[in-house]
Amino acid sequence: MMHSLRVLEGKRIDEMEVEGDSSVLEAVAGLEPSRIDAPCGGKGLCGKCRIKLVGGRLSAPDARESRLLSAAELGVGLRLACLARVEGDAEIELSERGEAYIVTSGPESSAELDPPVRLVAVAPRECSLEDQSDDEARLLEAMALELDRQGAGGPAPAKVALGALQGLARYCRGGAALGAVIADGGVLSVAPLRPGARALGLGVDLGTTTVVCRLVDLATGERLGSASELNAQRSFGADVISRIEAASAPAGLEALKSRIRTQIASMAKALAESAGAEGADLVSFAIAGNTTMLHLLAGVPPDAIARSPFAPAFLSRRTENAAELGLVQHQGCAAILLPGVSAYVGADIVAGLAAIGLHEAAGRSLFLDLGTNGEIAFGGADGILCCATAAGPAFEGAGIAKGTGGVVGAIDSVWVEDGAIRFGTIGDAPAAGICGSGLIDALAAFLDCGLVDDTGRVVDAEEARALPPRLSALVGEGLGDGSGGPLLFLDRERGIYISQADVRAAQLAKAAIAAGIDTLLKIAGVGSGDVDRLYLAGGFGSLLDVRSAARIGLLPPELADRVIVVGNASGAGAVAACLSRSRLEACDRARAACAYVELSSRPDFNEAYIERMMFPGLS
Amino acid sequence: MMHSLRVLEGKRIDEMEVEGDSSVLEAVAGLEPSRIDAPCGGKGLCGKCRIKLVGGRLSAPDARESRLLSAAELGVGLRLACLARVEGDAEIELSERGEAYIVTSGPESSAELDPPVRLVAVAPRECSLEDQSDDEARLLEAMALELDRQGAGGPAPAKVALGALQGLARYCRGGAALGAVIADGGVLSVAPLRPGARALGLGVDLGTTTVVCRLVDLATGERLGSASELNAQRSFGADVISRIEAASAPAGLEALKSRIRTQIASMAKALAESAGAEGADLVSFAIAGNTTMLHLLAGVPPDAIARSPFAPAFLSRRTENAAELGLVQHQGCAAILLPGVSAYVGADIVAGLAAIGLHEAAGRSLFLDLGTNGEIAFGGADGILCCATAAGPAFEGAGIAKGTGGVVGAIDSVWVEDGAIRFGTIGDAPAAGICGSGLIDALAAFLDCGLVDDTGRVVDAEEARALPPRLSALVGEGLGDGSGGPLLFLDRERGIYISQADVRAAQLAKAAIAAGIDTLLKIAGVGSGDVDRLYLAGGFGSLLDVRSAARIGLLPPELADRVIVVGNASGAGAVAACLSRSRLEACDRARAACAYVELSSRPDFNEAYIERMMFPGLS
Repeated sequence: MMHSLRVLEGKRIDEMEVEGDSSVLEAVAGLEPSRIDAPCGGKGLCGKCRIKLVGGRLSAPDARESRLLSAAELGVGLRLACLARVEGDAEIELSERGEAYIVTSGPESSAELDPPVRLVAVAPRECSLEDQSDDEARLLEAMALELDRQGAGGPAPAKVALGALQGLARYCRGGAALGAVIADGGVLSVAPLRPGARALGLGVDLGTTTVVCRLVDLATGERLGSASELNAQRSFGADVISRIEAASAPAGLEALKSRIRTQIASMAKALAESAGAEGADLVSFAIAGNTTMLHLLAGVPPDAIARSPFAPAFLSRRTENAAELGLVQHQGCAAILLPGVSAYVGADIVAGLAAIGLHEAAGRSLFLDLGTNGEIAFGGADGILCCATAAGPAFEGAGIAKGTGGVVGAIDSVWVEDGAIRFGTIGDAPAAGICGSGLIDALAAFLDCGLVDDTGRVVDAEEARALPPRLSALVGEGLGDGSGGPLLFLDRERGIYISQADVRAAQLAKAAIAAGIDTLLKIAGVGSGDVDRLYLAGGFGSLLDVRSAARIGLLPPELADRVIVVGNASGAGAVAACLSRSRLEACDRARAACAYVELSSRPDFNEAYIERMMFPGLS
Repeated sequence: MMHSLRVLEGKRIDEMEVEGDSSVLEAVAGLEPSRIDAPCGGKGLCGKCRIKLVGGRLSAPDARESRLLSAAELGVGLRLACLARVEGDAEIELSERGEAYIVTSGPESSAELDPPVRLVAVAPRECSLEDQSDDEARLLEAMALELDRQGAGGPAPAKVALGALQGLARYCRGGAALGAVIADGGVLSVAPLRPGARALGLGVDLGTTTVVCRLVDLATGERLGSASELNAQRSFGADVISRIEAASAPAGLEALKSRIRTQIASMAKALAESAGAEGADLVSFAIAGNTTMLHLLAGVPPDAIARSPFAPAFLSRRTENAAELGLVQHQGCAAILLPGVSAYVGADIVAGLAAIGLHEAAGRSLFLDLGTNGEIAFGGADGILCCATAAGPAFEGAGIAKGTGGVVGAIDSVWVEDGAIRFGTIGDAPAAGICGSGLIDALAAFLDCGLVDDTGRVVDAEEARALPPRLSALVGEGLGDGSGGPLLFLDRERGIYISQADVRAAQLAKAAIAAGIDTLLKIAGVGSGDVDRLYLAGGFGSLLDVRSAARIGLLPPELADRVIVVGNASGAGAVAACLSRSRLEACDRARAACAYVELSSRPDFNEAYIERMMFPGLS
């Protein structure tokens, strides 16, 4: 029996007839280009091939699917394409390629398509001898009428920028059709309306490690493409502290600034061109980045961020001329730097909170963005507490003997099967290292099997003999590096192991995050059982197995079934800010809702930190 | 008997004991440098040595003084230093050197000292671990408190400009005393407060022919100096139309722009240095110029100003970064371009109207700024009608055979004495030419003596014989240039004469102005007798003998005794705009009060123009 399947991705819609009982993955296999990533090859192992059911029905989730998706995720319609089967007519939505879902209402509906920076087509009335008004006045008048007709929010622009006066004088003549770019109450550029001119926006998630840019069409809301690159400043150091040190060196700030400006500029240009547009079609950037990254982009010395009491130069939302920031060559483009809360809870977190709408959500939500600094927010419509923990880079694979980032060949999942420890790698490639989610899975498995005890001590050779041979076979000689304890091999052939020191690093990292959560919940006067939702943001959050995280004490176990993986929420917030004034203003509201908690000065945090150092006993 | 005389000039005060019955000019002769200009040497002829009585008393004006000053001028305390005698204790005020009085309440009173751009000394509170607010937030908070303490008008700044963020990050630390320059709701620069730092403003009257800059101390209101130069763009043409043509040539706009920017920048720097300050102490420019000059300064093509329907690109007040306009090197300086009414009634006129307060004056005032374009405004608190007449350059000495500007040796006054025609020159130097006021005086004298008839025809040799020999001796051979008529010699020895063609040029110029006045009065529905005051602005207005002007029909004769010479009202308006927010806003209000009347499209103007071509008959 055939069923009809509609597949939505951004503005693209595919319709197809599907053989009954096909998996969704099989059904969409014919679509070009390949539209769903399924790293495990559709075996129901990796849990990455998420799609969203938006109409009709699919098969009920089986046990495997229920293990790989949280109840909250299933509740909002998320499914795994390899496991969900077509049992009737259905309409599904694909996320952007390579991105996890943002489980929030985005600005996709045309009602919310109200870009803060936009290209407005106007034909100002002609001047006459009887009414010798100036070009600026007639342009602003025509623009106010046009914006009113479009139902645009906010006040109409009140002035034309100095850089746009030349264009104004040259082109505002004889009723000609003009394209004017407006932002922040002013007109940035005026030029004849080019045939085929488009207005594009770029949402930028400017991370310390990665820069992700997403191009959108501001007239239609269509997602036109995205690109991700390692931050070109990485040669100056891996984390924000080393970047800040590098910026203090002579000419360091200038070098870091131009490095990131050039990178974003070239990513923007390439994205525009591959969307069949021109660089000059870019009218806005909305940039979510941590506080240090935004300082470096703006060319502002960030050194006070690294010293107590951690005072950044600026945190408020800024709208700058993108040409002045070196992001484009043309005048008619604004760069919006999104607002941050503090030196270590930056615009990336605020954009993520705004994307989710946490500042207006009912109930109590916990939000985690796990990276070198684990940023944590807790609250809802009544206000948000937030903090940053110095978790260290263990969960990014740094400082771990065989650690690696989330690259092909990285061990990203580890589990116990028939009394043996098994692992999977990204892309099913031969194991080349262990990434953050693999480390957490492995620790959970080691704890379950008794290879690591609840103090974090790895069993010695003597103790290992008491274990079943399939487990004791994993235990190898120590490194003699003073960290003590033997090695636990995941892949002896390729020499991939976890050392005692690696376990200690993971313990410190998870203790910092868990203690941060404890402290915020304590200030709020609630227990972890009172938390309605746990949003996991960031790339690492997308890969994390929440049950393993709960097993090692990184997350409260009560929340394992209340997790919503939101992926790159910062980037989604940035894109939303390009598309919609109200979503941009949501960033300001989210920021205003946040009260920052400085953990380093709190005795209760230190106490919780020490307490959380242990692994939970067997449940 | 000795009397006490206090002499005020700006912030300088001299006190002296004076022998009773000395003239004021004699009394102040000992002051260094020479403080009063008396071109005729104190003979009571030129009427230029004006001072203002502000307290005590002087001798009552005699007949000569009453002839040289209007009743309105005498009414506000203006006197001639050579004729007024010290008869008791008195306090007098000297105008700035070389400037005529602005007979209005200026922004000198400390109550009005509220500069729109100012240097604010603040010491933002320190950041703390408990309150990790950003530098920007703490600076703006400290600034709001300080501005409130100072009783400053307007909203406190809400953001720090991109260019000032570096300074903010470097210096906003540890409670340091900072100097921040604020303008237009934003902070332009932040730096440690220099010892001896001052905040200086420059009022600029940017004329087609002349650029006048006046430096003021924004903290005290003190006038620190002024400078006047011929506009460096003059090599591109004498009038706005030829400048506009030059700007249309390849690279022409760029050349004109940089010429005037460089000139103002160097005048500003030199003035600051001669006041013992630094260029970096300049925090504001307020620039009054005609619409074309402001376009060229901003680098905006002015060509539409020269073509019907005469649409300039911009007219509204603008606040720009002075460094971006190339006027200074440092960041902390704003350039305010004052607002204009139309292509030919520019910011110079608006600044003049605002300086006088014509837009809020009781009764009916007429305002004339005579130059190549004679701009005319009429009205008061109920609204202002304004127009521009193409008077031509005759009154500036251009297009007149022996014409010259107001330079040393220019015949600037002509009168009939004992049946003979006599003249005076600027600086009592040998006659070198005739300037505008001399031309008008000469025509009035020629009309009175019958050397020119009321149609403007110069008597021929035959008719001259009927005149007394002292007059007929002035008549010389015609030029044979087709203009017909003989020459009327003022100085045969030096070959200085007025030709028939010169008379015709003056006729056209005065007809245009008189017809402009007629048209505005007609639209307002009043006669010239209903006008309460006639303000004469501009350098030519200061030299003009109003009785001669009335004699030749340039001004309504009823107004001769209601004239108030206001000198460089544009420049005064610009200085006032630097010193006081309310005086700056007065420019916007004056502009808004103005309704522009396009004369070229009005049949009644053309009729009045033809009618006013004749000279009035003998009264």
